Parts: sequence; C-alpha cells; structure tokens
Amino acid sequence: MEQRKIKVGIIQQSNSSNITENRQRIIEAIRFLSSQGAQLIVNRELHDSLYFCQTENPDLCDLAIDLTQDNLKDYIDVARQEGVVIVVSVFERRTAGLYHNTAIVIEKDGTIAGCYRKMHIPDDPAYYEKFYFAPGDLGFKPIDTSIGKLGLLVCWDQWYPEAARLMALNGAELLIYPTAIGWESTDSLDEKLRQQDAWVTVQRGHAVANGIPVITVNRTGHEVDPSNQTNGIQFWGHSFVAGPQGELLYVAPDDAEDLKVVEIDLDRSENVRRWWPFLRDRRIDAYGDLTCRYID
Amino acid sequence: MEQRKIKVGIIQQSNSSNITENRQRIIEAIRFLSSQGAQLIVNRELHDSLYFCQTENPDLCDLAIDLTQDNLKDYIDVARQEGVVIVVSVFERRTAGLYHNTAIVIEKDGTIAGCYRKMHIPDDPAYYEKFYFAPGDLGFKPIDTSIGKLGLLVCWDQWYPEAARLMALNGAELLIYPTAIGWESTDSLDEKLRQQDAWVTVQRGHAVANGIPVITVNRTGHEVDPSNQTNGIQFWGHSFVAGPQGELLYVAPDDAEDLKVVEIDLDRSENVRRWWPFLRDRRIDAYGDLTCRYID
Repeated sequence: MEQRKIKVGIIQQSNSSNITENRQRIIEAIRFLSSQGAQLIVNRELHDSLYFCQTENPDLCDLAIDLTQDNLKDYIDVARQEGVVIVVSVFERRTAGLYHNTAIVIEKDGTIAGCYRKMHIPDDPAYYEKFYFAPGDLGFKPIDTSIGKLGLLVCWDQWYPEAARLMALNGAELLIYPTAIGWESTDSLDEKLRQQDAWVTVQRGHAVANGIPVITVNRTGHEVDPSNQTNGIQFWGHSFVAGPQGELLYVAPDDAEDLKVVEIDLDRSENVRRWWPFLRDRRIDAYGDLTCRYID
Repeated sequence: MEQRKIKVGIIQQSNSSNITENRQRIIEAIRFLSSQGAQLIVNRELHDSLYFCQTENPDLCDLAIDLTQDNLKDYIDVARQEGVVIVVSVFERRTAGLYHNTAIVIEKDGTIAGCYRKMHIPDDPAYYEKFYFAPGDLGFKPIDTSIGKLGLLVCWDQWYPEAARLMALNGAELLIYPTAIGWESTDSLDEKLRQQDAWVTVQRGHAVANGIPVITVNRTGHEVDPSNQTNGIQFWGHSFVAGPQGELLYVAPDDAEDLKVVEIDLDRSENVRRWWPFLRDRRIDAYGDLTCRYID
C-alpha cells in the first residue's frame, strides 16, 4: 500500500477591520507554510474581515463577494505560485438578498476544486448568523483534490455528528473546519474551559466515530461588539489537528497567532477502520427517524 | 423550575465464573450504594458471568436466560427492598437459537420498566458477539422511569452517534452504557491509552452533541481466553459520568473495583440546551442519506 502522508498548514491569526491587510497577512502566511512543506493550508472562518455577525446590520452585506475569479485572485495566485491546496472561507453574495457562509478549495494549479456552503447556521447573542446567511444547499459532499477527498465543513457544523458522518459516507478522507468561536467575558473561567473542551471533544468524537482525521482552524484575538451590547468576543484560538482515533496531533495556543505544519498519515485511517469497523455495523434499517426534528 | 438532581450509583467490579457469587456481590453493592443515597444504579454489561464472547462455543448458550420474573428475582427483590431503579444486563434467550444482549430497567417497586436489546453488535478477535447475539429489534426508545427517561444503550452502541441522537430525539434525559471493554496485552501502552481515550471521547461527544449526561459502567480485572488464542482481556475499568457539556463528573480507576455515587443535575441539560440549541438547527432536509451503508 502506498504511504500517504500529507503536511497540513494551519493559519491561526487575529483580524483587523483592514481587509487588504488581513489578506496580505494570510498570503504571507501561506508562503511561509508552503516553504515549511505544507501541501494543504487551512484558514479560519471568514478570514478576510472582522467577525461581522456580532451585530445585525444590513450595511455589512457590503463585505460579501461574488465568487468570481477576480474576487478570489489573491488566493488563486498564491495557490498556483506555491503549488499548494488552500481552503478559504468567504461571505458569499449569491444574488441580491441571498448570502452564504461559504468555504472554497483552491487546487495547487489555481483552479477551484469545489465549494461548501455552511449547512448549519447558528444564531445566538453575538453570533447573529441567521441574519446574514441562508443555510447551504450543496449538501455534505467532499471536495476531490490532488491530495485527497476533503470533508469541508464550517464552524457550527462541528457540533453535528450527522454532518461528519455524511462526509465520511461520501468518502471524505479528512474533516476540515474553518471556525470562529470564542468566549463571552462574563462567563466564569470554569465555564469557559468547559465550553472550549466540549468544542474539542465533540470534534475529536467525529474523528473516532468515523475513523478519519480532523483539522480545525480558529481565529484568535479580541473583537469588539460595534453595538456595545456585549463585551465583544475573545476568540479562543486552540486550532487543532486530531488523528483517526481522535488523538491530538497538535494544539495551537489560545491567545497567540500560530502558523504550524502538521503531518497526517492517511494510511492510519485504513488501519484504524480495520480494527474498529464501525461503518460495518451501522443499523441503517433503524436510522430513519434521524430526519425527524423530534419524535414525540 | 423544579430542581431535579439524581444520585447515580455505579458498580465497577471484576467477574468470576461463579454466577451465584457474581450476583451476590452485585446485590451487596446495590445495598451499599442505596445506603449512600443512590436512586439509580447501573451495572456493567453481562455482569452475571465471565465475558463469554472471547470464544465461539455453542455450549455457552447455557448461560442465557429467559426474561422471566423468576430469572430476574434477585434484582427485582433488591430493587423493591431498597427502593432504587436498577439497570441490569443479561444474555437473553428469546427462543431456541435466538439470543440477544439485553439491558433491563427495574423500577424501584420491582416492576420491569422496560428493555433494550443491543442494536449494534461487534465482532472482532476476542469479542465474537455476532455469534451469540442477534441484533436488537426494539429500536432506540428511552425507558420511562420514576427518575426520568433513560436512554439505555449497550457497549458497542457507544461508538455510534446515531444511537445517542435517536435516544435524545425520543426524549432521553440520560444516556446509559453498560459496557465490557478492555485491552489486548500485545498492544503498546501508547495504543492502549489512545483506545481508552477514544472510548471516553466519543461518548463525551454524545453528551455534548445532545446536551445530556452520559453514564458508562465497565468491568475491571483480567479474564483469560479459554481457547488460549489470545492473552485474554484486561478490562480497563474507567467507568465514568459526564455532564451535558461532556464535562467529566467522575472517573473510576482502571484496575480496581469501585462503587461510587455521583450526583447529576438534570436541570443543567435544560440550561445547556438553551445556550447551545443544536436540536434547533439540525438539517433534517439533508440527512436522508444517513440510512445508506455508503454513498458511492
């Protein structure tokens, strides 16, 4: 069997309101990670701007972009120049009044390998995403690339075992989550740590249940709430890579930027699934009610 | 809102080939845990005997019992005498040549509250369960009791997010897993710890994804392989209770027996689900393929 190891670069950064500068820093990070041997580079969610969903403001739809070659040119160019596969995350304008939270995979030759539109949309204080984003309509389809089938999902999707499972059943070899998640300042330290640990745990659980690695990239740093209703969001960093038994291969710091290359051995998934053949024993005859909202 | 705290007793023990003695030790443990305030007491999987699935031997079907009042009398009596709800796990003989791995809830008045027949049946070296047990046919239905709706599952089920989710969608307030899992002696220490941590993690993940506590009770001690093909199983203990954010409330030792009462606050589930309303955003329109074996 061919040895299949891939080197994944993660870009954990903070953001400013200067989109040009944010992009420039990402391009530099991609060049750096590529120089360190990264073949796949994963960005945080909505990395071009501040996390604008802290308030509901129609004017912020100006931040959305059509998915044209021109709008993605910076990323297309660097992918081709460096010969790396890149995951980018954008506020997509599909038409007037119809927007998505969309992740895109750019091949190492600069072509668009595929898109994923965030399927599960959150809405809670400081994360008013239902105002901005229509739920995705592309389903849970992995994106075929030169380095494997990428099970690309986005942030809130990470709490849903169904999303991870459907990606695995569709042949995904990696689960990838660009993310923007953080703390509310009035929560106690205990509560903050419980939240962060729950977030890591549920995603490591997807790795275990499906026997595939997970790559999660979050932003770091504090962003103020323009409405002053909350104390803003302290994004908790802690980007991580887990193997197919949920074992942590790398964890980034909470409160600092981090550029890191992590090696993943895709052959381990094959081996882990031989010993733990969970897919073999699924009771597909008894899962029909998973399409119910609730059963009562 | 009424404060709903329940005290759960867990019985982590080793087993001998002496069924009468195993039962007697369990009855004593139930009396002890009841004296410590336990209202719900959970046993390990197939607690009456050695873990007989290490070999495929038709004679071992002698260990199976019909689910009659008489065969369960010891447990029914102690439940009524102590006024506690008890989860027992038995090798059920349904008819000639048809057996199940079945968990039963006995109410505090000694009535049978309900049964669950293990839905996911494993089969790997030293765990030849497909030889003994037909897959369950009762589905994923919580069992209504005086202390709440119990989402009772068994061992191998713990690797399946679908099982946990269906229990939650059916109104379960707790997930409960009687278990028999351990190590093969030739695995490295690293591998052993990865396996055990994966096992804890995936179940804590079910707690997080569904916002409900998890109670898992395993056996401890070494049991020899009667066929001498392996070095037997070192059951890894490590029974645990996790809250609705996956936070560990208690973890038993790996290599010692343990009787413990753990308090669970069921109101926390209500609160956690208000802040993390995952059930609200499930994409039930896009989950249909979960009933596929694989999609290709």
